[in-house]
Parts: sequence; C-alpha cells; structure tokens
Amino acid sequence: MTSILEKYKEFLPLEGVIEFEGLGEGNTPLVKSGNLQPSGTLFLKMEQLNPTGSFKDRFAAVETALMKQAGIKNFIATSSGNTGSALAAYSAKHGLRCLLFVNEVAPENKLKQMLVYGAEVFRVKDFGVTNDLSAPIFKRLQELAEESLTRLVISAYKYSPDGMEGVKTIAYEIVEQMGESPGQLFIPVGGGGLLSGIWRGFLDLKEQDLIEKLPRINAVQPELNDTLVTPINEGLDMAREVKTTTTISGLAVQVDIDATLALKSVKDSGGTGVLVTDEEIYRAQRQLSESEGVYVEPAGATSVAGYLKAISQGIVRDDEKSVCILTGHGLKDTSSSESFLNSRQIRNIGLGGINRDLIESE
Amino acid sequence: MTSILEKYKEFLPLEGVIEFEGLGEGNTPLVKSGNLQPSGTLFLKMEQLNPTGSFKDRFAAVETALMKQAGIKNFIATSSGNTGSALAAYSAKHGLRCLLFVNEVAPENKLKQMLVYGAEVFRVKDFGVTNDLSAPIFKRLQELAEESLTRLVISAYKYSPDGMEGVKTIAYEIVEQMGESPGQLFIPVGGGGLLSGIWRGFLDLKEQDLIEKLPRINAVQPELNDTLVTPINEGLDMAREVKTTTTISGLAVQVDIDATLALKSVKDSGGTGVLVTDEEIYRAQRQLSESEGVYVEPAGATSVAGYLKAISQGIVRDDEKSVCILTGHGLKDTSSSESFLNSRQIRNIGLGGINRDLIESE
Repeated sequence: MTSILEKYKEFLPLEGVIEFEGLGEGNTPLVKSGNLQPSGTLFLKMEQLNPTGSFKDRFAAVETALMKQAGIKNFIATSSGNTGSALAAYSAKHGLRCLLFVNEVAPENKLKQMLVYGAEVFRVKDFGVTNDLSAPIFKRLQELAEESLTRLVISAYKYSPDGMEGVKTIAYEIVEQMGESPGQLFIPVGGGGLLSGIWRGFLDLKEQDLIEKLPRINAVQPELNDTLVTPINEGLDMAREVKTTTTISGLAVQVDIDATLALKSVKDSGGTGVLVTDEEIYRAQRQLSESEGVYVEPAGATSVAGYLKAISQGIVRDDEKSVCILTGHGLKDTSSSESFLNSRQIRNIGLGGINRDLIESE
Repeated sequence: MTSILEKYKEFLPLEGVIEFEGLGEGNTPLVKSGNLQPSGTLFLKMEQLNPTGSFKDRFAAVETALMKQAGIKNFIATSSGNTGSALAAYSAKHGLRCLLFVNEVAPENKLKQMLVYGAEVFRVKDFGVTNDLSAPIFKRLQELAEESLTRLVISAYKYSPDGMEGVKTIAYEIVEQMGESPGQLFIPVGGGGLLSGIWRGFLDLKEQDLIEKLPRINAVQPELNDTLVTPINEGLDMAREVKTTTTISGLAVQVDIDATLALKSVKDSGGTGVLVTDEEIYRAQRQLSESEGVYVEPAGATSVAGYLKAISQGIVRDDEKSVCILTGHGLKDTSSSESFLNSRQIRNIGLGGINRDLIESE
C-alpha cells in the first residue's frame, strides 16, 4: 500500500508533491536462480513484475506525480514500447491526457497496451529508423511541446531527470533484500538511463553510510548496438553513435542519450562491459523460461545473457553474488517467443488419446 | 526474497518441505482506487502482478514444493488457462515434468504461455464444453494418474487441498497492508476455491487473535454461470449445477467443485452474492484500465463489476472499506480487450503531421 514515492521520498525530487498513491510500482521480488547458476549466487531482480510489466513504472510514477503537482493537464512523450505503457497507465490514474509518439518498429502488442490505458498513440513514419531520419522528427516534437506550453517526456536523464530518479529505488530495494550490496550487477543498456539510475541509487546509500561497499556495475549490450561497451573496454570517456541493426526491441538506441553517463558509472564502479549477440539474448530468454520459470521479453533477458558470458570468460566468479536486472515481461511481446515455441506445439487429442503413452514417451 | 511459503509457513501444510525458494509469488500491492470510488474506501488487491500473472501462483508454489518434497518427477493437471501457466512455471523452477490437459475453449495466448515454460499441453476435444461431455474425460484423467502412479493436480480444495492453502496468504497480506480487516471483500467465483481460501485465511487470523473482526465476503458471479449466488440469496445450503453460457474465460465452471464450500464461507461471514452480466464485467475491465491504469483480463475485473453493482443497489455503503480481488493480468488475454479498442486506433502520421492540432483537437 506504500508507494515507492512515499517510502523513498527523502531520496527523490518530490518537492511539493503531496499525493503519493501509485499503482503498486516497485517492491519487486529478488529471486535466487536455482538452475542457471547452481552455486546459489545468482539473483534475478524481477522488474517485469511492475504494474505495466516493466521497470519504466518507477520513472512514470515520479514523472506523472510531478506533472500533476505542477498542474499540467496534457503532455507528449516518445516511446519504443514500455515507456509508453507506463506513462499511459499513470496518466489514467492521475487524469492526465497522454499523447505518445512511437517509433515505426515498436511491437504491435506494446502499442495496444498503450491504447488500453487510454493514451492517444501516433506512429511516426521513419521515427527510430536511422539517426538522420529521426533527428528532424525529434526536433519537431521539442518545438511542439514549447508551442503548446506542455512537456516532452522521455525516459532519460538527459531529458526528464527528475522522473528518472525513480529508477534509483531499484538499488535501495536490492540492498534491503540482500542486506548488503551484491558483488556484481548486470544491467542492459539501451539509452543508458537504467544503469545510470541504479548506480546513483547505490551512491546515495554509500553517502548515507547505509552500505559498506559499492557493487561493480557491468553494462550488457547487443553487439549490434555497441554504443558503450567497446568505448569502455578501450578506456574511452565517451559513448559513441552507431548504426544499429539489433532485433532486440528496446535496446536499439543508436545515439548517446544517457550512454556516456552510463559509461562513467561503469568505470567509477570498477565494472566492465559485455557484448552479446542477439542469438545469445534469445537463448537466455528461453533458458530463463524453461529452467527458471521466469518469462521476460528478449531485452529483459539481456542481463542474464551477459552474466552467462562473463562467467564463461572468467570475468566474474561463480562464488560472487551477482544480480541481473530483468526489465520487461514476456507477455508484453509474445511474438518474440514464437521462435522457441516452434519445437513445442499444442497437441489436440480426444478422450481416446488420454493414455499412458503420453507420460511414458518423453 | 522471502517466499510466501517461508513467511507464512506456520499457516501452511508444508510438513517436510525444506526448500522454500519460489518465483516471487504473493506480496502483491493493495492500491487505493482514486477514480472508481472517489471516497477513498475502495482498495484493489493486485493479484494479476504475481509472477505468471494470476493468483494461481500461490497455489502452484505450495503444490509444486510439496510434489518436489515427495519425490514426484512428473504430474498431470487440468486447466482452463491460468492454473496451467502457474504450474508450468513452478515446474520449470523445480525440475518437474508437467503435462497439462486443457479445455477446448482456453484462449490461445494462455496456452502459449504454458508452452513457454516448457509444459506439454494437450487440448482435449469436448473438455469443458458440457458436463456430460467433460465427465468421462475427467474420469479418464483420474484413472491415468492412478495407473501412472502420479498426481492429478487441480486448483480446487476438492482435489488439491494442500496446494489451495496457498490462497489463504491473500488474507494475511490484506490485513498486513490495511492494519485490520476490511469491512467488505468482493471475490469472483468460478469453481469457488479462491473465495474459500481467502475466508480460511481470515479465520486463521481470527483464531490467533490477530484481527478483531472478520470481513463480510461477497461472491460475484456472471449471471450466465450462477452456481452459487441464487442459492445464497434463496437461503440454500448447497450450490447447484448450471448450463453455463458466460463468455468470461476462467469463470465458466458449471459444476459444484468448491462452490458449496464458498457458499458456506459467504454465509458464515454475513456477506451476500452479486450477479453481473458479461457486459458489466467487460465495462468494469475498461473502467479499470482507463480510469485507474490497471489492466486485467475480464475475469480479473469481475469483483469490481460486483462492487459497483452492490454500491448502486445500496448493499454496500461507500464509507465502508472494501477490497476487490483482481485475479489475472490483461496481458494474458489481449484478445479480450479488442472490443474496447475499436474506438481508439493507432494513428499513422509523418513528420508533417506533428502539429498543434493533435493536442488542441481532443
């Protein structure tokens, strides 16, 4: 019944906000992996169990509370999928009008989820396809927000820093759940805001002497969207722009939004960067569902793909406590699991087909 | 990080179980409705935020822990949808082989979710269509379990009473979250196990003097599957068999499984029964998503449909604290919200279409 806004208000930029009622965001389980890591040192932070199915609810809860407090009645926002549903749901709760401008490749199911909560959804031709095509669209949205005296909301520190502070609460919860910092954290990087926010949360706790040591933060990216990992491993200080070809929805962010901020976080923590193929991400998604009973969308399994690679390469030891951040629920994008269902079909039988052969022939 | 099994072990039949690690089931939010009931007395228990998206995870967590402890390697189960996914996920976690026999009308999306977790899914012709057609299929499944020295698992007190005790934990959490019993509870009834389990949970708390007073329990059913409500309102002691025609997936249970047990629970609590039309359920589903930002499947909105009807009929006062149990996530069965999306479409625009008209023309 307590919102993360109320529970952690001393750590959040909530000046003036008096209404903290949310949708039950946060307070997500931390589950010990039994099969992917039999040593019992791998923990899964189940952010896919937030109300709309992703960690973006932590951002939306803070951002919409602030807009309501400021007397804003409507706003515009961009989304590749999960941010849109999160903002739409909290807008329904708070009576805000939410206009979402989504990129051309956002999965259909995710767009429908936005509509369900009553948002107005505009799919913009060429948006998100290449940097050259996206730039003027983005500029036009910024102008529109100014002309209309409203806000352009984007789930990134670069654009909506106050709302993004909601992400810090993931760190507070992990420490409450473990009683200490984990040794290692694995976090997927698209824009970079999730990783940056979690690191800031740990810094808060250190500053207040609530933890003894900080964890190492490891950034995991698809090889095909490597804005951050190669620069980290080359010792550079800045993320870079790439031409993305990854098929992992939500992680195709080719420009440096919060990526340099994330890069700095990784370096400050003494962590590293891990690249994984799209195939390794899909395999981790399947392993999570079949071996752990945890169903996430592909982006949501990226941290686990990175962890497994880091273990196999000896970057991380299996006696170190590691936390992987899972991000979005598998039910948000069921088309992404069609591939691994090909080998397993629903079988149609009649009364006569119910016999011991079904059990004995595995 | 604490499973409900560990937290509430003194109240659960877990003799011999030593491994309590679950999937983060339970500990679901209790959210205050802001718009459906502006008086601030309506609370939504968000059971759709369980790991596989429904309250059935509480059942599956206990049932599979017991099977693992008993050394069972495989089992068979029946499901109309949500039980199957819950059992499949916990089977993946615990390394159990799970064979699911589903009825002919279970939504395709729900069957796919079962497959995702690695279950073997058999759709049985005529199962769940009428009582006459279902009875021999059910009998054959019971025989198969005996022949194969395994269990037939069904989420009902009548068949799997130990696992069903997991449902009691909903009551414990509500009291922790509110600091007391609510005045009224609204609970959907399909088979009747959910309601019966929650009532048993409150009785536990009363017996241990952990609450002062018991809540009134109100059963909500579709008019088209009225096994329980009319018998309650006529003062009878037994539920009845009906020919169901409801379109609400999960609530079409035409025989008395736990319905008489649920009827007794309602009477003992001093509550009542409420009938709602399928239309009223779909409307409540839409109101929850558009006014509260909460997306559930139709069955999941049934308690709210019943609450709104009870308020309009003066059965419940709006100054009484009421809790509605929401059961299954909307993302589990997106086809069920297609109807209310007809009026709201994704709009395709280009760069030139981004202008103030979008904001000014509502």
